Amino acid sequence: MTKIILDGMGGDNAPEEIVKGAVCAVNADKELSVVITGDEGKISPVLAGLSYDKERISLVHCTEVITNDDVPTLAIRQKKDSSLVVALKMLKEDESAKGFVSAGSTGAVLTGALLRVGRIRGVSRPAVCPVLPTAKEGKVLIIDAGANAECKPVNLAHFAIMGTAYAKANLGIANPRVGLVTNGTEEHKGDPLHQEAHELLKKLPGICFVGNVEGRDIMSGDIDVAVCDGFSGNIALKTTEGTAMAVMKIIKKNISESFWAKVGYALFMRKAFKKIKRVMDYNKYGGAVLLGIEKVVVKSHGSSKADSICASLLQAKEAAEHNVTENIKALLSEADLENLGASES
Amino acid sequence: MTKIILDGMGGDNAPEEIVKGAVCAVNADKELSVVITGDEGKISPVLAGLSYDKERISLVHCTEVITNDDVPTLAIRQKKDSSLVVALKMLKEDESAKGFVSAGSTGAVLTGALLRVGRIRGVSRPAVCPVLPTAKEGKVLIIDAGANAECKPVNLAHFAIMGTAYAKANLGIANPRVGLVTNGTEEHKGDPLHQEAHELLKKLPGICFVGNVEGRDIMSGDIDVAVCDGFSGNIALKTTEGTAMAVMKIIKKNISESFWAKVGYALFMRKAFKKIKRVMDYNKYGGAVLLGIEKVVVKSHGSSKADSICASLLQAKEAAEHNVTENIKALLSEADLENLGASES
Repeated sequence: MTKIILDGMGGDNAPEEIVKGAVCAVNADKELSVVITGDEGKISPVLAGLSYDKERISLVHCTEVITNDDVPTLAIRQKKDSSLVVALKMLKEDESAKGFVSAGSTGAVLTGALLRVGRIRGVSRPAVCPVLPTAKEGKVLIIDAGANAECKPVNLAHFAIMGTAYAKANLGIANPRVGLVTNGTEEHKGDPLHQEAHELLKKLPGICFVGNVEGRDIMSGDIDVAVCDGFSGNIALKTTEGTAMAVMKIIKKNISESFWAKVGYALFMRKAFKKIKRVMDYNKYGGAVLLGIEKVVVKSHGSSKADSICASLLQAKEAAEHNVTENIKALLSEADLENLGASES
Repeated sequence: MTKIILDGMGGDNAPEEIVKGAVCAVNADKELSVVITGDEGKISPVLAGLSYDKERISLVHCTEVITNDDVPTLAIRQKKDSSLVVALKMLKEDESAKGFVSAGSTGAVLTGALLRVGRIRGVSRPAVCPVLPTAKEGKVLIIDAGANAECKPVNLAHFAIMGTAYAKANLGIANPRVGLVTNGTEEHKGDPLHQEAHELLKKLPGICFVGNVEGRDIMSGDIDVAVCDGFSGNIALKTTEGTAMAVMKIIKKNISESFWAKVGYALFMRKAFKKIKRVMDYNKYGGAVLLGIEKVVVKSHGSSKADSICASLLQAKEAAEHNVTENIKALLSEADLENLGASES
């Protein structure tokens, strides 16, 4: 049995969709148990209407909620009875708790995980790591997708190590191909940060570094881990979202403008398009992992509904079972970055 | 009559497709004349097989070609009889030459334009500015999409000014909405560069600054000019390309996997999809303008075929006729950046 803690009050659709997601997940996986933190008065009525194994979902009552309007550092310190802080305290203290899922504010989850659970010794900066679909039907990780707007070369080396460990564990890729996302494929491309990071990645043992890649390569299927500084990684991630949305809108508009295309769509293609939408809607795959924290933390999208929460819970369980944290530690010690002359200062 | 100079030897498909593009453009616009620079022995036979007004295409013979393998600064200095250098010299010296189009190496075109034509007084750094389609069927500019991997706040202010001038002139937008692309919409988001740039853009007269935007907003149709540093702008631009390509591949695959979807496609939707592909293939709209140079310079995609070259030539003519350079100068003097405390040093 693997125990995952769930922030019952985080996200736009809390607590109803969050609770439904928990039920969906325990029904899907008999080896999963979920502890939900949050307002009992709001959560119990939702649970009461659903059918599931009562032994495997429990509830820890708390009174506060951290919202997007809170300043993360303050909220984590002051809202001690919030669903997020109570959950993270439990994650830290309860050895049988293997992971945590929240659809709450990214800043608060990140800050809370750092302050209350702690980072892996040797990791300079934890990073946000979402999974995207590729043109070749595979998956690709972007790391860092936004936790660190300013980076040093050693941070990017840590992202490569953590991304590799996660791709091995959760995507089942034996030797993940790591690309450094810059403004051109040539070795000398990029600003000094990326030029130095490139030199570091070349020397890093335990990593399959394929060199510099461009934005167009992220979803090509030719790499498994796209290493970015958090600033441009966030822009790249959100640009994929915006572009996919724009393309689907342009397609829809062109279909609706042509009588015959509309007929074809209605008669033959509705099902295929539904499937396409599902592939593109990568939030349904689960959330973004926060790598570099001592335990598994998954940040589900703020607009998560039950199916995304369900996927995030299963993802957290899988990451815990595959010992992602231990794998990161092993790769870190193999890499021996200090010996490569890289340090945080 | 507007005279545009065309680099006959730049690009993967030179000179044949380049020459065909020139013929296509003069046939499409009776007020356009084109001067092609390049190897007469290769260009004349292509021209001989085509039908066009002989008065409006002329040829200037030269013997050298600058390729992607050349180091731009060296090539511009040493290959004095190359199609690029000869063209730029003519652009500088011939007052009746209003613009220039090349599908050659971006680095060489940029370096050559700077060294041989010169930048607009007061513009700190010229920038590459491509046009993308939006979800609302409009167009959006990205500036800078890759000329400057390292930027200062004042550079980003100049990009906003130049993008505004171009959007007014070539896209016909009276009051272009300018967004600063960062890792979040809140005012304090971004690294120090983008935080300072944000403050500067807020104070800039003549610019309709709508604030920080995210990667997902670039193609949304809610902004007209996306201001980026050249590093993340390049990543954003190429991520749109890669994502659009991945989405189309995923759609194709899903259609080909379903018998009924295949039938629907073959019977009803082929035409609609062709149109969609055309909308997405923004290289066909023309090239990326190099803004900040004393005369109009359009960089067409390296893989340009005749239709892209044709579009780039018409785009260059339009930019020249709308006095983009003069408009940039007027906005620059209105902005009075030095008075706002912004300088290059």
